[in-house]
Amino acid sequence: MPQTTETNRKIILASRPKGAPDDTTLRLETEAVPLPGKGEMLLRTVWLSLDPYMRGRMNDAKSYATPVEIGGVMTAQVVAEVIESDVAGFSKGDYVLAPSGWQDWFVSDGTQVLNLGPEPQNPSWALGILGMPGYTAYAGLLKIGEPKPGETVVVAAASGPVGATVGQIAKIKGCHVVGIAGGAEKCTHVVETLGFDACIDHRAEDFADQLAAACPDGIDVYFENVGGKVLYAVLPLLNPFARMPVCGMVAWYNLPGLPDGPDHGPQILSTILRMKVKMQGFIIFDSFPAELYQEFARDMTGWLAEGKVRYKEQVVEGLEAAPQALYDLLEGRNFGKVLVRVG
Amino acid sequence: MPQTTETNRKIILASRPKGAPDDTTLRLETEAVPLPGKGEMLLRTVWLSLDPYMRGRMNDAKSYATPVEIGGVMTAQVVAEVIESDVAGFSKGDYVLAPSGWQDWFVSDGTQVLNLGPEPQNPSWALGILGMPGYTAYAGLLKIGEPKPGETVVVAAASGPVGATVGQIAKIKGCHVVGIAGGAEKCTHVVETLGFDACIDHRAEDFADQLAAACPDGIDVYFENVGGKVLYAVLPLLNPFARMPVCGMVAWYNLPGLPDGPDHGPQILSTILRMKVKMQGFIIFDSFPAELYQEFARDMTGWLAEGKVRYKEQVVEGLEAAPQALYDLLEGRNFGKVLVRVG
Repeated sequence: MPQTTETNRKIILASRPKGAPDDTTLRLETEAVPLPGKGEMLLRTVWLSLDPYMRGRMNDAKSYATPVEIGGVMTAQVVAEVIESDVAGFSKGDYVLAPSGWQDWFVSDGTQVLNLGPEPQNPSWALGILGMPGYTAYAGLLKIGEPKPGETVVVAAASGPVGATVGQIAKIKGCHVVGIAGGAEKCTHVVETLGFDACIDHRAEDFADQLAAACPDGIDVYFENVGGKVLYAVLPLLNPFARMPVCGMVAWYNLPGLPDGPDHGPQILSTILRMKVKMQGFIIFDSFPAELYQEFARDMTGWLAEGKVRYKEQVVEGLEAAPQALYDLLEGRNFGKVLVRVG
Repeated sequence: MPQTTETNRKIILASRPKGAPDDTTLRLETEAVPLPGKGEMLLRTVWLSLDPYMRGRMNDAKSYATPVEIGGVMTAQVVAEVIESDVAGFSKGDYVLAPSGWQDWFVSDGTQVLNLGPEPQNPSWALGILGMPGYTAYAGLLKIGEPKPGETVVVAAASGPVGATVGQIAKIKGCHVVGIAGGAEKCTHVVETLGFDACIDHRAEDFADQLAAACPDGIDVYFENVGGKVLYAVLPLLNPFARMPVCGMVAWYNLPGLPDGPDHGPQILSTILRMKVKMQGFIIFDSFPAELYQEFARDMTGWLAEGKVRYKEQVVEGLEAAPQALYDLLEGRNFGKVLVRVG
């Protein structure tokens, strides 16, 4: 069923997953296209962004954001086209970045909507390298990681939109950069296209040894995207005063509860203590001053134009394909920034 | 055997403990009193400080300080009397703070020795409230914890020299302060003498519930001294942007290896991520600028004079009693700052 002007397809949270989401977690529903009222505009979704944080919104846990309600439309940022508008500053034909969620149509009064103009060059980039993932990489690495020239920076999920950007910025800043990714194809891309100094396949049996060999001077900054065994292999390599921006833990998002032991709590705390490590979590839209976004947009636009930062997208066709694409993403079966072409 | 002018008693590391130290860990040996040469001075130990960090020096692990060698004298700061001196700035009869270790006599060229003068008012305080433990509390709380008026600060080992000082400084800064200690006597002291708002006995069966009840607005700063079940009870109470100076983990120092599960690693990382928590380890003598020590000495001297900070010592008699006193300290069987009266 394609996008039409009569029907709004929406994907709702049908039940909260315990562990990995499955067929019962999300459900496609349809309804009439909503009508915008006075002071509102109607948006047609073009690109839907899929991101690991969405797994967290399926839970009912205390967190930085309100969970999606059962029966509610799944949260997402999209790039949409303005179809009709009674909102100042938005005209028919403009492209916008909007919190529409997983659906074809969205009525907005302009809250949290960013106008990209009528003919943006790469509209989908607002969901990736020039949007939340790119800004997350930039702010987390530079403001919490504080990398210095010559230091060693390690980042997992290195072919994903955040990890790839972290590593490329760290190279620009003069660091020795080691990525971690799943499989030979991704690792080759990370070294040959993105220019990391090395990339280790976390599926290798001797992964921890390979990581240690790639970091002969230890690790000064570990940008944490994944948790799990990668974290436990990194801890013994951290240098005194190492910094660890904590951005995600995708290896653990699908845990139904605490996993079996041993308990690595003492290892984590002991490393923080002995090595004087700083671990700091952050959420991109409330951990940094608003001015930083302007710096990011200026720097990143420049780096892209100069070819110093490269960016890879993986496009999934059709809204119906979105649930499986998210589940694949949570298992590391994506390659680059995942976007759904909705209409 | 008391202190004499003929014999140097010294306590050496006989073997590295696997788990809790025991009778085979430390050994008393004797030798002739060493003779100072040109440019050296002879120091007689008066007060020996016992501190939890000493357990770490018994291990052969990569850490911030070199381990004690097998057969080497156990590390310690002491307050000593200068018996004879060929070092400029030190005269016979001066009291000094010195890294003599667990022994009666020490020859020094003045390196890392601080002169306290001929008649210091409370010489032992240089090992406690006006020394390393006091400065640790001050710098860790104010520079990493950054408490703001009205915030909730939690500290464990609250009747110990670091915890007691952290809580009293937090009260001075206008915070709601909750201590954690072992047993009713310590808890009463923490509230009635030290002025904390509450103190929870970690031996209580409903400890986690009591802690939650004492922190109705959550926890903004958790000063980490202990690890273990106290840490795991604190994590669910941390507020967004909470800060956690990591100063020690005495509940875990005697672990022979990683304990049985479940693995709390995901709980720790998930809390850091969702709540944007900062956890930061520090070592007092290399994590802060030297000027901070002057600020500390000025503030703390003032607070002591005004009665805003109170300080409790527990004196153990005789060098031979030091090993058991350290083992008791590691099990929380001390009450206040532990000092050994050596001579």
